[in-house]
Amino acid sequence: MKWTWVLVVVLLSFGGLSLGKESLDFPEYDGKDRVHDLNGKNYKSVMKKYDVMVVYYHDHPGSSRVAQKQFEIEEMALELAAQVLDEFEDEDIGVGLIDAKHDKAVAKKLGLDESDSIFIFTDDEVIEYDGELAADTLVDFIYDVIEDPVEIIDNNRELKGFENVEEDIKLVGYFKSHKSEHFEAFADAAEEFHPHIKFFATFSAKVAKALDMKLNEVDFYEPFMDDPVVIPGKPYSEDELVKFIEANDRPTLRKLQPHNMYEIWEDDVGGEHIIAFAEEADPDGFEFLEILKQVAEDNTDNPDLSIVWIDPDDFPLLLPHWEKTFDIDLSHPQIGVVDADDADSVWMDMDDGEDLPSVDELEDWIEDALIETTEVRSKGASRLF
Amino acid sequence: MKWTWVLVVVLLSFGGLSLGKESLDFPEYDGKDRVHDLNGKNYKSVMKKYDVMVVYYHDHPGSSRVAQKQFEIEEMALELAAQVLDEFEDEDIGVGLIDAKHDKAVAKKLGLDESDSIFIFTDDEVIEYDGELAADTLVDFIYDVIEDPVEIIDNNRELKGFENVEEDIKLVGYFKSHKSEHFEAFADAAEEFHPHIKFFATFSAKVAKALDMKLNEVDFYEPFMDDPVVIPGKPYSEDELVKFIEANDRPTLRKLQPHNMYEIWEDDVGGEHIIAFAEEADPDGFEFLEILKQVAEDNTDNPDLSIVWIDPDDFPLLLPHWEKTFDIDLSHPQIGVVDADDADSVWMDMDDGEDLPSVDELEDWIEDALIETTEVRSKGASRLF
Repeated sequence: MKWTWVLVVVLLSFGGLSLGKESLDFPEYDGKDRVHDLNGKNYKSVMKKYDVMVVYYHDHPGSSRVAQKQFEIEEMALELAAQVLDEFEDEDIGVGLIDAKHDKAVAKKLGLDESDSIFIFTDDEVIEYDGELAADTLVDFIYDVIEDPVEIIDNNRELKGFENVEEDIKLVGYFKSHKSEHFEAFADAAEEFHPHIKFFATFSAKVAKALDMKLNEVDFYEPFMDDPVVIPGKPYSEDELVKFIEANDRPTLRKLQPHNMYEIWEDDVGGEHIIAFAEEADPDGFEFLEILKQVAEDNTDNPDLSIVWIDPDDFPLLLPHWEKTFDIDLSHPQIGVVDADDADSVWMDMDDGEDLPSVDELEDWIEDALIETTEVRSKGASRLF
Repeated sequence: MKWTWVLVVVLLSFGGLSLGKESLDFPEYDGKDRVHDLNGKNYKSVMKKYDVMVVYYHDHPGSSRVAQKQFEIEEMALELAAQVLDEFEDEDIGVGLIDAKHDKAVAKKLGLDESDSIFIFTDDEVIEYDGELAADTLVDFIYDVIEDPVEIIDNNRELKGFENVEEDIKLVGYFKSHKSEHFEAFADAAEEFHPHIKFFATFSAKVAKALDMKLNEVDFYEPFMDDPVVIPGKPYSEDELVKFIEANDRPTLRKLQPHNMYEIWEDDVGGEHIIAFAEEADPDGFEFLEILKQVAEDNTDNPDLSIVWIDPDDFPLLLPHWEKTFDIDLSHPQIGVVDADDADSVWMDMDDGEDLPSVDELEDWIEDALIETTEVRSKGASRLF
């Protein structure tokens, strides 16, 4: 905060700016209204003004104080995002609101059926954002949106960069050149999933050899898996790629992150989530994560298994809340089964992380926990345990 | 944002909570005042109430609107942090303010000379926080503060966790047991630098063998360096360790992060910073980072070289501001020399990241840039280029 203050002092004393001191000065909302209220009259003209339009299609705010305050906070986050994006020079990016009660018709015209989500309109795609409604997370996501859907791997150093991407689903294709029709099909498929799923391509025989890939082959990597699945039936049409990805878009191990947290939470398996808390920067947490990855690799073919990994470092403000809600100590690794609806949960006894389970013990525990919860459900019990 | 809304709806309709839907609900400031204004009368009694006290020793806010608004925003961030920490059950953590104009005497009594910083008082240490004044970053830092200063490495999986820590200065010691006087000296030294510098220890001969360490040896790792420096003269006293660390606490390559950004920015070298922007999640950025690490390893003995790496993903809200201030495109890697005071800067021409420099080219460029800037300075020029 030093610089911020120094800046203020400078402003007061000379009425001028010091760029150097301002270099690390976080933007604050300047009070100017930039977020558009979109309605039947203005939405076309407003959206024409921008290369990219960020639209929050929100339910009509309730009349209660809670609801009103909630909505104000969301508007402020969007205003700050709009202000930052306003300074961004590569593209003209606008932000707007559509009220689901007053302007459902506009949403319909734009092809939005599900309210309470943010939709990002680019030239040829509408991309849903279902993450934290915070300026920094949203803005970072938008930077990804406007990047090229396909990253090209030119050499071995970049290949290491590709291998370093392990938290998202990623695909890599090997093609003759940019002009190859098969690359075009790949790029078209990429636009359907970008930026949620990462697409890479190479035109280098050397890189392809290192990846052990044949021409026009596309490999599919689940998060945290070293070995890919070769998508069968090359060369592929865009449809074939899209179908395969849609059939494989729930990984065995996936990381909850601010930009995808609600999307993942909604994608529960039979009303439940297997949640694993592990702090990667901590030896215990790292060790447990290694075990989790092994369990995931051993069970990658089990469609009913999808473990949600949460690194507490990514959600410092939620940590005490989670410790209370789940009655666990998050200074050590934890794994449990959580009811996605009422947050009832059962957690593995790991003796404060002193005694981490083996891969087999963990697999057995998960199996038992899932069976148990299913039985309880089938008995029609309203709570899990 | 979905859950937040569902929660609101639930509140309205049943007036009750749904834990499940609340599980991912970010806390918002509830309006309750938790931050204490510390003064000569109350500071002793207030601080006695808490295990850990977070004190923002701030300059007296100016009377201008800018200064007032600035201070309000800072107070709000601290209130939200206090609210979250209030829910935290492991320790009683309090937050307080000391006004440098009205209560300098209190600060003096607490041993604080430098204002405009946050100081965290634990049983036996006062730790300075000089990072972003944001609730999540500050709270996350405080979690680190209350963790044990020394992490024990018990096995090879945890050893991989240790190796995975590369962004901070870290030390590891090999001792006979917890009771060893040499371990105690190590732990005492750790308290002096915790949590800014990471301390690890092992009592396992197997782990020590993997690290190629002798009994009572302590190894010092710069960030991003695979090979440690063996601290000479084992076994060491606390003083010897502290002296060595203080003599080596400016790494050749260091990462600017929200929790240390102002601390690093102030630690300029001759009024300048070498700033490298590289997005690790991007192949180009990863490739450039690999080159940077090589340059750092080759020049680790050069005391005048300290490259500050910034990953734009860590500062989405500052990105457009930086692109404007430095007149660069941050969708590609960039490296430049920045005047820490007036932000004048010169950047290497990297042809939009298409043509990254070799290690040698980068070393030559840095050398020339530094010489040039020094010459201009010595000519007493007020601006760099």
